[in-house]
Amino acid sequence: MARKLRRLARLVTKQHGDEFYHHPGTLPGTIIVDADAPPPVIFLIDYNQTNVIRHQITAPEECVPYLDTASVSWVDVQGLGSQDILQRLGQVFDLHPLVLEDVVNVPERPKVEDYEDQLLFIARMVVPKERTCGFYSEQVSLILGKHYLLTVQEEPEHDCFEGVRSRIEKGKGIIRKQGADYLAYALLDAIIDGFFPVLELYGDRIEELEEEVIANPTRQTLQNIYQIRRELLQLRRSIWPQRDAINSLIRDGSELISEEVRIYLRDCYDHAVQVMDMVETYRELASGLMDVYLSAVSNRMNEVMKLLTVVSAIFIPLTFVAGIYGMNFNTEKSPYNMPELNWYWGYPICLAVMAVIGFGLLFLFWQRGWLENSSTIKRD
Amino acid sequence: MARKLRRLARLVTKQHGDEFYHHPGTLPGTIIVDADAPPPVIFLIDYNQTNVIRHQITAPEECVPYLDTASVSWVDVQGLGSQDILQRLGQVFDLHPLVLEDVVNVPERPKVEDYEDQLLFIARMVVPKERTCGFYSEQVSLILGKHYLLTVQEEPEHDCFEGVRSRIEKGKGIIRKQGADYLAYALLDAIIDGFFPVLELYGDRIEELEEEVIANPTRQTLQNIYQIRRELLQLRRSIWPQRDAINSLIRDGSELISEEVRIYLRDCYDHAVQVMDMVETYRELASGLMDVYLSAVSNRMNEVMKLLTVVSAIFIPLTFVAGIYGMNFNTEKSPYNMPELNWYWGYPICLAVMAVIGFGLLFLFWQRGWLENSSTIKRD
Amino acid sequence: MARKLRRLARLVTKQHGDEFYHHPGTLPGTIIVDADAPPPVIFLIDYNQTNVIRHQITAPEECVPYLDTASVSWVDVQGLGSQDILQRLGQVFDLHPLVLEDVVNVPERPKVEDYEDQLLFIARMVVPKERTCGFYSEQVSLILGKHYLLTVQEEPEHDCFEGVRSRIEKGKGIIRKQGADYLAYALLDAIIDGFFPVLELYGDRIEELEEEVIANPTRQTLQNIYQIRRELLQLRRSIWPQRDAINSLIRDGSELISEEVRIYLRDCYDHAVQVMDMVETYRELASGLMDVYLSAVSNRMNEVMKLLTVVSAIFIPLTFVAGIYGMNFNTEKSPYNMPELNWYWGYPICLAVMAVIGFGLLFLFWQRGWLENSSTIKRD
Amino acid sequence: MARKLRRLARLVTKQHGDEFYHHPGTLPGTIIVDADAPPPVIFLIDYNQTNVIRHQITAPEECVPYLDTASVSWVDVQGLGSQDILQRLGQVFDLHPLVLEDVVNVPERPKVEDYEDQLLFIARMVVPKERTCGFYSEQVSLILGKHYLLTVQEEPEHDCFEGVRSRIEKGKGIIRKQGADYLAYALLDAIIDGFFPVLELYGDRIEELEEEVIANPTRQTLQNIYQIRRELLQLRRSIWPQRDAINSLIRDGSELISEEVRIYLRDCYDHAVQVMDMVETYRELASGLMDVYLSAVSNRMNEVMKLLTVVSAIFIPLTFVAGIYGMNFNTEKSPYNMPELNWYWGYPICLAVMAVIGFGLLFLFWQRGWLENSSTIKRD
Amino acid sequence: MARKLRRLARLVTKQHGDEFYHHPGTLPGTIIVDADAPPPVIFLIDYNQTNVIRHQITAPEECVPYLDTASVSWVDVQGLGSQDILQRLGQVFDLHPLVLEDVVNVPERPKVEDYEDQLLFIARMVVPKERTCGFYSEQVSLILGKHYLLTVQEEPEHDCFEGVRSRIEKGKGIIRKQGADYLAYALLDAIIDGFFPVLELYGDRIEELEEEVIANPTRQTLQNIYQIRRELLQLRRSIWPQRDAINSLIRDGSELISEEVRIYLRDCYDHAVQVMDMVETYRELASGLMDVYLSAVSNRMNEVMKLLTVVSAIFIPLTFVAGIYGMNFNTEKSPYNMPELNWYWGYPICLAVMAVIGFGLLFLFWQRGWLENSSTIKRD
Repeated sequence: MARKLRRLARLVTKQHGDEFYHHPGTLPGTIIVDADAPPPVIFLIDYNQTNVIRHQITAPEECVPYLDTASVSWVDVQGLGSQDILQRLGQVFDLHPLVLEDVVNVPERPKVEDYEDQLLFIARMVVPKERTCGFYSEQVSLILGKHYLLTVQEEPEHDCFEGVRSRIEKGKGIIRKQGADYLAYALLDAIIDGFFPVLELYGDRIEELEEEVIANPTRQTLQNIYQIRRELLQLRRSIWPQRDAINSLIRDGSELISEEVRIYLRDCYDHAVQVMDMVETYRELASGLMDVYLSAVSNRMNEVMKLLTVVSAIFIPLTFVAGIYGMNFNTEKSPYNMPELNWYWGYPICLAVMAVIGFGLLFLFWQRGWLENSSTIKRD
Repeated sequence: MARKLRRLARLVTKQHGDEFYHHPGTLPGTIIVDADAPPPVIFLIDYNQTNVIRHQITAPEECVPYLDTASVSWVDVQGLGSQDILQRLGQVFDLHPLVLEDVVNVPERPKVEDYEDQLLFIARMVVPKERTCGFYSEQVSLILGKHYLLTVQEEPEHDCFEGVRSRIEKGKGIIRKQGADYLAYALLDAIIDGFFPVLELYGDRIEELEEEVIANPTRQTLQNIYQIRRELLQLRRSIWPQRDAINSLIRDGSELISEEVRIYLRDCYDHAVQVMDMVETYRELASGLMDVYLSAVSNRMNEVMKLLTVVSAIFIPLTFVAGIYGMNFNTEKSPYNMPELNWYWGYPICLAVMAVIGFGLLFLFWQRGWLENSSTIKRD
Repeated sequence: MARKLRRLARLVTKQHGDEFYHHPGTLPGTIIVDADAPPPVIFLIDYNQTNVIRHQITAPEECVPYLDTASVSWVDVQGLGSQDILQRLGQVFDLHPLVLEDVVNVPERPKVEDYEDQLLFIARMVVPKERTCGFYSEQVSLILGKHYLLTVQEEPEHDCFEGVRSRIEKGKGIIRKQGADYLAYALLDAIIDGFFPVLELYGDRIEELEEEVIANPTRQTLQNIYQIRRELLQLRRSIWPQRDAINSLIRDGSELISEEVRIYLRDCYDHAVQVMDMVETYRELASGLMDVYLSAVSNRMNEVMKLLTVVSAIFIPLTFVAGIYGMNFNTEKSPYNMPELNWYWGYPICLAVMAVIGFGLLFLFWQRGWLENSSTIKRD
Repeated sequence: MARKLRRLARLVTKQHGDEFYHHPGTLPGTIIVDADAPPPVIFLIDYNQTNVIRHQITAPEECVPYLDTASVSWVDVQGLGSQDILQRLGQVFDLHPLVLEDVVNVPERPKVEDYEDQLLFIARMVVPKERTCGFYSEQVSLILGKHYLLTVQEEPEHDCFEGVRSRIEKGKGIIRKQGADYLAYALLDAIIDGFFPVLELYGDRIEELEEEVIANPTRQTLQNIYQIRRELLQLRRSIWPQRDAINSLIRDGSELISEEVRIYLRDCYDHAVQVMDMVETYRELASGLMDVYLSAVSNRMNEVMKLLTVVSAIFIPLTFVAGIYGMNFNTEKSPYNMPELNWYWGYPICLAVMAVIGFGLLFLFWQRGWLENSSTIKRD
Repeated sequence: MARKLRRLARLVTKQHGDEFYHHPGTLPGTIIVDADAPPPVIFLIDYNQTNVIRHQITAPEECVPYLDTASVSWVDVQGLGSQDILQRLGQVFDLHPLVLEDVVNVPERPKVEDYEDQLLFIARMVVPKERTCGFYSEQVSLILGKHYLLTVQEEPEHDCFEGVRSRIEKGKGIIRKQGADYLAYALLDAIIDGFFPVLELYGDRIEELEEEVIANPTRQTLQNIYQIRRELLQLRRSIWPQRDAINSLIRDGSELISEEVRIYLRDCYDHAVQVMDMVETYRELASGLMDVYLSAVSNRMNEVMKLLTVVSAIFIPLTFVAGIYGMNFNTEKSPYNMPELNWYWGYPICLAVMAVIGFGLLFLFWQRGWLENSSTIKRD
């Protein structure tokens, strides 16, 4: 558990941690390349209504002939592991130093920035992990130009753009008839829709935890609730600024985005709001679960106490009675010294008295309902 | 209980769960038909000030002749189980692909969208369950055109529009004199008013829980409080965006809604605010109940502890005294070895001492108020 | 207690409960008359700078001659128990169907609505109960016309308008020199000022509860805190929308309200804000009290536990010692078998050892401060 | 303690309590004079760049000759105990009835109101108590005219204006070169700065409570935390509306306040924000302390329980062993009847077994860390 | 611990404490010099695209020749310990009295103020402490003029401007080509970026505390959580107004800041938002940890109680049985008086019965899962 939490913590820390800030006072626009990051792989897709070209390229400069044509060019860079390639990319696309910094020095907070002839959208993509509950989180930067879209992902592995790629290749829907702005919308839509499978996982886990809290709450349950709250917090921090960024895309009216695409973005915004809504609902449910857990613990302690009290309250008086007749007062010295010991029916009477006391107390406890196991809940 | 919660969870999950998102990256406007959904049943009501036609139709195309006439046509589709019919419906009413997606891929968040000659209102209707406390929740999409209103419900069973239908047929009120916008208002009003009976159920349940928390709080009580909080959370998520949507209907000034209807919508908005208000009040009451429950549990543990302490504090010293006179010091070897055992009044004195100790402690506890049953509350 | 809570609950429920919504889908403007409501009593006061007429009337139509004159007519309807009279009233004053609905179908949320030549203000009036802590809550609807003011109260019993009536009759202040708008202000001011005596009651009760939580917290205390929170919640729901309504009265600039009266309304608004402020403060105090209560309960359990532990820790070891010398090892078989029993000073030494152990432990506990009664607080 | 809390409560109640509202429905502008209030003392300071006159006057009418001159006249009324004088004051300064009501019927919520040729500023002044932690709270009303400033304080005792008076007399700074608006600013600045010494007291007290919660938390600690939260709540209610009032002074642009003074007011506003900030920080610290207190109580109960458990778990089994050998089975009837009693080494072996059991359990508890006093915190 | 907390408290108090307010009513613009403050050290850097001059000066007047030239002059004052020098500085730079007050009377809340030809920015710089977790916090005031930037720091020791100084000297980036506004931006950027290393420390500490709460929660853990919450509160109070101030720098459009620098400030604003975001996340994590801590304590008490109950419930009945056969009923007087004592197998049977009872109870407890150590969490 501890190791798991630590790994999680590192994951969170990684997002805010060592590599993600440069030393205070360094040159703005400085880019820092993490030595462990995967080397960039670059894919180029160039399409118009009739043709599609898709191939992998090695040097950023190979894009140049495609950028100025009327066809839409989508350059998809996956991996941030080479300072050289990233800087050449910056020159090819004529990126502002601050844009390059935002793209490379991950993680950056999701946002949209308008640089006259380019629009920068920093997004955060989540991909559910297959086995365990959890998700990979990766920054995707979209730089939209007149006839091109440059996307930069942190790593080549996880990606939720396959559907868009196949729509381009097969010419499904209107994507081939539209410009680079529609492509940007399609990718954003895929990113936002990518939150739903992750949220579904959390919905299931909360459901499981609800059962667990009722049936058999352990300390592990508590850990799980804490962890879910923590991960939902992280999801919330990813989706919240993304929603705002999409909203300002819709309203601020950059010339790079057509009216028609704006209508589609409104739909994308609605989905982002829905994701927010669900995250907040799950957060409230998780903190409600914490309350239920705490009172389940209290209830269990109550039961333990009751058992102790019932046992003690019954046997301590009985033991006292037994203790009395264990005293060694000399019955020969005086007729008042424990004459019971010499009675013919002394022992049976004594046992009978004890039985009456014991069962009497038991009856009293039963009457007050202490003997019912309050943890058994009528299941209907 | 567990099964009940699971069912509930599924209900909530259903609203956010498996079927309600398409794979990230799929074509926007793709509609997904749930195989288990009931097949659509279509009703057409066409009326003007003098005539009413009401009949069930089987093919969406049968509506066409009614749509362009000056009379108001209300096409009510109940059930989402046929992709073919839904797509033909989209063609007949010339729906934007995003509209069709919103209508079919339930659940969508309540909202209003203005598509020049059509107005889309996604609403959420709740219908109380008859026996148990709870409610059915269903999406109703209203598409308002110049002379027609298309409504799409998830299933044909539960519905709160019967009152409106009968007002149309019997010509009660001004509904026959008004256009499709008034019809849309009348339906929205019915949807919002439909929250009140559901809320009344929760008011009653909270009242019951208050009694239960005072009289006999069990773990079941806790489950019930948690469940009410959960269901109120769901209600809140339904009514909140609905209120905003009605508000933007009033203010944004679509041409499809007349000034006169806007006044009526203001009334509808007031009711939505009132619903919100009540939901928030109930939520605060429910979380107050949680506090009361937790301290009721603490109080009960307190009582258990008190009983244990009273019994122990009285009998443990007495048992010690009995233990002393159970020791086997040889009285013959020394006059100092337990001479009490040979006293004439030894045993009676010993018992008397014990009685004094026992009743003395009892008196002390009584004086401190420990013997009163603090759980008995003076009922006035 | 339970009955009291139930009665309270009903009071709250009554405000949201059975009668206050019509069946979803019914005609807007439908008025529902509660069979148990008191029959309406109508008072007419007509005054100008020189004359005052005040008498009770039976038929709404009797007002007609007064309404068009330049003198101010105040028609005060008390009771909602007759559908016939209420509908005739609607005709006499030419009320919009929605206005009549809002006035009759209580409770409505406080609000202000502008209907060109009429201004509807839905207010909520509270009147403190004489004996117990609590308040009556009643809806007052004010309909302001050019030269008249129609007020509709739920019942004839409680009322805080007597001061205004006497000012009109005695001609105190400027009320006789002003129009119907000033009369509306004077009534609103009386309604808002009516919250202060109720709040004072709650201030006193919170003060009492503070003493109680310190001196002798019982479960009843908890109930009382919960109840106060509940009632303050209700007060908050009454005053909040009222404040907003007065604010929009000031800003929205209806022609029915003169500039001069607007200055007075600003004062009324300040009072409403002050009421809000006090309600929020009391709510925070009440929830702070809950915290104090919970830790008082914890503290008390702590003390009980300490007593149990002190008694057990002292007597259990002593009883063990007594138990040792109660063993029956045969001292004749061996010199090692409990030779103490045959010692000359055996018993006194044994008692002495016990005394040392007992008082030693007692001293240790005293040193650790366990014997002080931590619940006694130095009162300064 | 209880008496102290009661006194405090009365102080708070006094602010909202008996005397501070008139009967609902009374004439607006009615002033209510508290019979116990101190009689008004009136000071007049009249100054320009060259001269200063300062003397006490008895009748409000004595001010009249000073008011119209170009020199700045500051009339400072201390005490609200005479209806006659207050009403004559209203006539001398030509106050609107609502102004006089706000000034006299304390406490009023801090606010600013613009009456064409007069500006009313209701402020709340706090003065720290010398010995105990706490503060006096008093309403100060400032009425700013063209060439005069009228200030009305509740009582003559506490006051934070001495610094301003001396600056006027000694001609320090620019105060003598500026108009009445600068004087109003100087007084407001003194009022806001007067919150800092009070806050410093609370900072010290919170620091003390932190030590107390760690070292020796008692029920008194809890009371103190509650009381601090209560008093901070009161401070917050004083400063919050004051900040808003200063802000609207700056923005609303009354002609009575010059551009230059507005710059100074901006500084005053910054200080009010800083006060707010500190109050909120202290409130959060105080509620964090409550959490620490609650878990300190839990920890202590844990320790008590551990001690009880250690003592019981060690001695109860031992007592049982002793009990076995205290049984009276007849060793003569059978060789199986407690032959141990007749063994040569019986008693020593029995004691040895007891010792092994006892120290074994002790060792186990020591190993689990139960014997360490968890309440001792390593102090570094 | 206590001393540590006290030191911390003083640090916090110092920020709000003794020296930071002047006596209410003193002259605005009065500067108060703390006798213990370090004496000011003044550095001058004057640069343009080709030359850099950097040297320490002793008298503020030495700056004068540099201020009016077109080159950018950065005067950096470190230390507030001399009233004389600070006032001469005010004269040299022609500072408004209120500016000088804000600069000298630390701490002031971060803010930006526009004085026509000067722009005052009060910032708060944090520098992580090397060994312990914590940070130094210092006010930096920036006064931006046409060709100069005056910065005033509280003390000469900690500083995060070294990177900027070296960029100026080595001519890295565009800093030498830009004006004083860019320099101000560079410093602000260094200040904001300086929060990240501090936040990283807290991220690590929270991670450690998570492990600690799981593995071995002590009272020290609680103290640490409280302290982290407290310090995060302080960080939040530093960054929140700073973010607002940067935002108003961007929007309010002072002429002293060029369009180009405004783009850079936008980047700086994004970083401030990111800092806010992280502080809030850490605060939520810390308060979640408190919940986990509290239930860890409850769980532990549960275990203690269980052990006590298991031991008591097993041995108390057994001791009772032993007590019965320790009674001294006279077997000779009656065949019914404890005949078991004289049975041939009496003792073995008695022991067997005890064993059956004891192991039976043990089995029952084992079956209910009480013997598992619930605190052992499966670590995966």
